[in-house]
Amino acid sequence: KDKSTPQPLEDLNGTVAQLMTEAFGILSPHNTVASALDYIVRTDPSITITYIYVTDEADKLLGVLAMRDLLLARPGQTLEEIMTPTPFAFTPDVEMPEAVNAALAKRLRLYPVIDEEGTLLGQVYGWRLFEYVASEISAQAGSMVGVNKEERLSTPILQAFRMRHPWLQINLLTAFAAAFVVGMFEDTIARIVVLAIFLPVLAGQSGNTGCQALAITLRSMTLGETKGFPVAQLLRKEIILGAMNGFCVGLIAALAMWLYAGFSGAGDPVTLALVILIAMVGACIGSGIFGVMVPLTLRRFGADPAMASSIFLTTFTDILGMGLMLLLATSLLL
Amino acid sequence: KDKSTPQPLEDLNGTVAQLMTEAFGILSPHNTVASALDYIVRTDPSITITYIYVTDEADKLLGVLAMRDLLLARPGQTLEEIMTPTPFAFTPDVEMPEAVNAALAKRLRLYPVIDEEGTLLGQVYGWRLFEYVASEISAQAGSMVGVNKEERLSTPILQAFRMRHPWLQINLLTAFAAAFVVGMFEDTIARIVVLAIFLPVLAGQSGNTGCQALAITLRSMTLGETKGFPVAQLLRKEIILGAMNGFCVGLIAALAMWLYAGFSGAGDPVTLALVILIAMVGACIGSGIFGVMVPLTLRRFGADPAMASSIFLTTFTDILGMGLMLLLATSLLL
Repeated sequence: KDKSTPQPLEDLNGTVAQLMTEAFGILSPHNTVASALDYIVRTDPSITITYIYVTDEADKLLGVLAMRDLLLARPGQTLEEIMTPTPFAFTPDVEMPEAVNAALAKRLRLYPVIDEEGTLLGQVYGWRLFEYVASEISAQAGSMVGVNKEERLSTPILQAFRMRHPWLQINLLTAFAAAFVVGMFEDTIARIVVLAIFLPVLAGQSGNTGCQALAITLRSMTLGETKGFPVAQLLRKEIILGAMNGFCVGLIAALAMWLYAGFSGAGDPVTLALVILIAMVGACIGSGIFGVMVPLTLRRFGADPAMASSIFLTTFTDILGMGLMLLLATSLLL
Repeated sequence: KDKSTPQPLEDLNGTVAQLMTEAFGILSPHNTVASALDYIVRTDPSITITYIYVTDEADKLLGVLAMRDLLLARPGQTLEEIMTPTPFAFTPDVEMPEAVNAALAKRLRLYPVIDEEGTLLGQVYGWRLFEYVASEISAQAGSMVGVNKEERLSTPILQAFRMRHPWLQINLLTAFAAAFVVGMFEDTIARIVVLAIFLPVLAGQSGNTGCQALAITLRSMTLGETKGFPVAQLLRKEIILGAMNGFCVGLIAALAMWLYAGFSGAGDPVTLALVILIAMVGACIGSGIFGVMVPLTLRRFGADPAMASSIFLTTFTDILGMGLMLLLATSLLL
């Protein structure tokens, strides 16, 4: 498997400024190679100089020198003669996805940071960028259910409560929406109580099917793989998968309903089984669509595509799964 | 915020072998600094030599040289004299978490790979390790709901179906368990149908509260932060948070039940509201416990702690949330 063309990363927050540290190994362009060598020898050996930054009197970055450049030069040459002029550098306002993708392409140990005028402000280590990526991406599963990426094990309980609780209240509101839909069919449930027993089955299956589509869409967005994929193609795949998964899972659920309704004598077992099968296929197809559309819609509105995505998704899948079952039962049985 | 002591990473699959590439820049210990310089000058400039690997006739890695070492040496010295002997190196069987943590500590651009006898087998770039980490961690949200980390947008539909479907059947089985619990209270629901309407509310809230605890636990495990935290402390925090969240969300849900039951005249509104409040607090406390225990239990059994964790978690939270509400209603109202 060829890994030489790394995938670009997307949807990371923050800018280069927050990972910048002080630059060292700064010399003037008029220094000779010999004096640069002398400088390196005299430097505290605990500081590993990777590059020499060549700056003018106004601290403007003129060029960089790798150790290799000094190695291949003559002692009397000036740094100006052998440096790599106008080197690759970040400005502090470069967004993280851009910085990380640049780092995956350049693969250097260290990157200079300059301002708009070219003044050397500091440097950023490649490993810091990647450490940041690991931290950011590991926050995604939490973001999906309303956990702030700033929350850690050491976060005080009250602060964790303040960060998590608003999303749980929003989740409650969305649960009320699902409850409202179920409530519209109160008469149906009162007449065929077995339908209440299958509410968690429909909600659970459509929710998990939707979360599978959501997770694969989010991961592809994070790793920058969605760029070449038109939305229609993403949707087509999840619709077909939803239909296949809904049908195979629906068959088992329909069999369970047929057995249960047959034993308990509640309603016509065959029709009830058919209701479950059709509702499951429909709900799983819809879940696939929501799983793709929720993160894409969040991003379109400028939000983090993972943000509370699972809360939004399960709202739709709950309403669709339970609503479809109750609607079909009402139409076919009452 | 000091970032100088990077967090160790855990729970990554695979070994160093899968990221190893061919080593270059290999010289004998008897070479002089001058001949090493000559070698570097003659090397294709598209190949950036970061280190010189010094090996004996049997390809055993004796030492490494950074460009800086050559720079500070005299042309007549042999590589043997100036090399860093027995350098840090991976063996191909080093597990990824160990390799990534070493890379975060060493922060080198490149690491040699040797076998047990010290023979140089190849090299691993630091950026490849980090690229791997990004890919692995971004798979976590999918693992939680049964998406294989090998699945990509380009995975054919049938293959995606084969990878995702077994987990949906397992999810169905767990949904049946929840349905079985609800079924035990069929008589209660038949008499107080409004309880059916609150089934998705209890399931949704306990599920999302549990997923918050699950996500923060998983992330902490991934970033290696759980090591200093005894399980009791993790549990204590999530229990308190569950109680606080359950109480505040339960108050609103209880109010909704009080209003709904009052209007519809189904059962005693105050008792029904109390049932919802107590069930919500109990379910959210339990969800916090499950959110911590599910990934820890998966790891204890040698599995990926994220694997289907959301499926297992929602089984418990569904049964607990809906079961507690129906049990309380049965005891207090019938």
